[in-house]
Amino acid sequence: MTSLRSWFSIPRGSHFSLANIPFGVISTASSTTPRVAVAIGDHALDLEVFAANNGFSGLSTIQPHQAVFSQPSLNAFAALGRPIHSVVRKYIQSVFTESTEFPEVLKNNASLQKQALIPLQDVNKHLPFKIGDYTDFFAGMTHAYNCGVIFRGPTNALQPNYKHLPVGYHGRASSIVPSGTPIRRPNGQILLNPTAEKKEPTFSPCKKLDIELELGAFVCGSNEQGTPIPINKAADNIFGVVLMNDWSARDIQAWEYVPLGPFNAKNFGTTISTWVVLADALEPFKVKGLENDGPVLPYLKEQDEKSVFDINLQVDVKTSSGHNTTISKVNAQNLLWSFPQMLAHHTINGCPFQPGDLLGSGTISGDSPAEYGSLLEQSQNGKEPIRLSGGEMRTFLEDGDEVTIRGVCGHNEEALVGFGECVGRIEPALELKFD
Amino acid sequence: MTSLRSWFSIPRGSHFSLANIPFGVISTASSTTPRVAVAIGDHALDLEVFAANNGFSGLSTIQPHQAVFSQPSLNAFAALGRPIHSVVRKYIQSVFTESTEFPEVLKNNASLQKQALIPLQDVNKHLPFKIGDYTDFFAGMTHAYNCGVIFRGPTNALQPNYKHLPVGYHGRASSIVPSGTPIRRPNGQILLNPTAEKKEPTFSPCKKLDIELELGAFVCGSNEQGTPIPINKAADNIFGVVLMNDWSARDIQAWEYVPLGPFNAKNFGTTISTWVVLADALEPFKVKGLENDGPVLPYLKEQDEKSVFDINLQVDVKTSSGHNTTISKVNAQNLLWSFPQMLAHHTINGCPFQPGDLLGSGTISGDSPAEYGSLLEQSQNGKEPIRLSGGEMRTFLEDGDEVTIRGVCGHNEEALVGFGECVGRIEPALELKFD
Repeated sequence: MTSLRSWFSIPRGSHFSLANIPFGVISTASSTTPRVAVAIGDHALDLEVFAANNGFSGLSTIQPHQAVFSQPSLNAFAALGRPIHSVVRKYIQSVFTESTEFPEVLKNNASLQKQALIPLQDVNKHLPFKIGDYTDFFAGMTHAYNCGVIFRGPTNALQPNYKHLPVGYHGRASSIVPSGTPIRRPNGQILLNPTAEKKEPTFSPCKKLDIELELGAFVCGSNEQGTPIPINKAADNIFGVVLMNDWSARDIQAWEYVPLGPFNAKNFGTTISTWVVLADALEPFKVKGLENDGPVLPYLKEQDEKSVFDINLQVDVKTSSGHNTTISKVNAQNLLWSFPQMLAHHTINGCPFQPGDLLGSGTISGDSPAEYGSLLEQSQNGKEPIRLSGGEMRTFLEDGDEVTIRGVCGHNEEALVGFGECVGRIEPALELKFD
Repeated sequence: MTSLRSWFSIPRGSHFSLANIPFGVISTASSTTPRVAVAIGDHALDLEVFAANNGFSGLSTIQPHQAVFSQPSLNAFAALGRPIHSVVRKYIQSVFTESTEFPEVLKNNASLQKQALIPLQDVNKHLPFKIGDYTDFFAGMTHAYNCGVIFRGPTNALQPNYKHLPVGYHGRASSIVPSGTPIRRPNGQILLNPTAEKKEPTFSPCKKLDIELELGAFVCGSNEQGTPIPINKAADNIFGVVLMNDWSARDIQAWEYVPLGPFNAKNFGTTISTWVVLADALEPFKVKGLENDGPVLPYLKEQDEKSVFDINLQVDVKTSSGHNTTISKVNAQNLLWSFPQMLAHHTINGCPFQPGDLLGSGTISGDSPAEYGSLLEQSQNGKEPIRLSGGEMRTFLEDGDEVTIRGVCGHNEEALVGFGECVGRIEPALELKFD
């Protein structure tokens, strides 16, 4: 897409070009109450301050709702609905455009610039939403296939239901943390010898701590219990998208997950990026997902075949020795099911949603090992260590490893729609004593 | 236990004797804002009104915190901690005791009696907590065994992990509803012919709609992410207990649950009773649970062997013809794991809890069919219909069926500690049209 020129200095290559305008929740050392902001170049625009100083004088639609920008989460803003998100984003774009029709708002208002535009390095980024419920899906078909091969062999790698419905499970909302939060290695029950006849678990720090490269989608709509969100309305209920690292304890998972699914292997922490890229900003990057060769039931059939996103994702691991390695590069279109399909399936039974509920895509992997979104796949469940820059080997994560997920749409360095970073560093497990 | 005599008329056989004092959230036609109350006999004592009229004049401890009673949930009250819950309950008991040392508070205060004591029939009962996260366990070992026999045969009925850890899964907090809310039969994908070679699902209203007789425990404590709640502190973090019906769509579940566990089969609705019986009120009814003959890891070992409850549970089904049948009577001690053990396991990896989080016990079944807590077990997955009063047969629930769970501790009709009712009636599935 063509770039919009701004009077404001936006560094070339910034994830937060004028084409983006992602929303988040910030605080600063001098103003510690969390409130709503957008990211633009190297700065955050504090929307509470902006609104309080007639920033929205050119947009009457939002004026009755300006209190949403003083909230400590995006829930209230999201609940206004996509048409409002759309006009607010467009208005902010127009305020920053070189030839803005509202020059008095910010371009020629040095005082408000000084008050409302805060360098990102001075900003604390909070969880963007108060998350009611979080559901993690398994829509990355290549990942699902690879896991199936590792655990069951290639003949029945995908379960019979896989192509008929978006398989998912309920996650733990309380364990979701914003990018930058350290992640403590979990303790738990693991089977040191899984093939032994007698299954006797050991209490231990997780020895197979893994990443999962995912996208998360925040919901802005709601439905009454008992009433589904139909597939043709589902996209209207998606607020925007973040990067997600669904940290996973593979050894705890292997022992605990039968028959009710993953539990303590997941609920110790899930990291998300802090700037939510609006569905509108992603619209130009919609593409077709993976081909589903099974018959799809009508309640899951989308009119718009382009319902996943062309996002270039990348996973880096920096060890405590300081060496950084990009271990995976993969495109987010490697999904069999879209977020609207996930939402339509999730609510087909009447399950109620609220603004701020979160959907995870499931791990995104491509066809080659350099495109795998988990170490489980990259190391073949620990059998084939991978070599990092500096010569260190890894099967799973070690203490001190810092994992960074990045994602960006587009190639025009002046019009990128990026997600920033989703970072977490592994801290050693707690040493627990029992009498 | 001996009964406390009250100056207030509490009907013989009431679940809400002076020995109980359960907490809930109410509103009335004339005062529609939800606030905190306790149940006593046939009445609710409105604690907002009680507090505002010097009701707590004899309890200085609570005076700085009285605002918690004006909240629309018990979260803030619960967060004060068990020592506070304990003194508040004891104080209310003392106010209602025949020989009360605080006669001026209520006994001799006809005006406040009139304002604060509301007949239960005039009260709307709300969800007692704003539930952050909800986890459902599988601690009813007889139920787990029975299900294993039905689906896998008797040889490996219990999975290898079953006696080593409380198996559980994350539920959907948004779908929890208070007793009395109708439950709509869910639509979803089911396999009409599960044994066919080609697995081709059909979109249909659930044909195997079931109940699950459970207890729920609300958490009052919290822990920081990364820091477990140790087993010897876990009981201090349990606020109280409710009855729970975890409605289940067995046919949807059978198709969807591999490999990530139950999902749409569960998240269409879970009903809880509305009066939360405090952990303190249950203290006299603590008993030993089912014997665990496996070695239990130290982090799950309880000092107090009596950690489950002697509660007489009962499930009634009333069909639309008006006939009522008690289909199950079972004691709540049929659990292999206690709520403190569930909480210790859930947090051993550092998973964070907040006041208002909910733990489900899993279905509680006894040894004989008349003690089974689900129709799956009672009808052997639909193979053996059960006969109801009036001659109707049931394998699973039909539209119009109303299910009532009751639970009560003790036998002294003047000192019962009961839970009231947990009721839901099945509404027909929505008829959905697709283009």
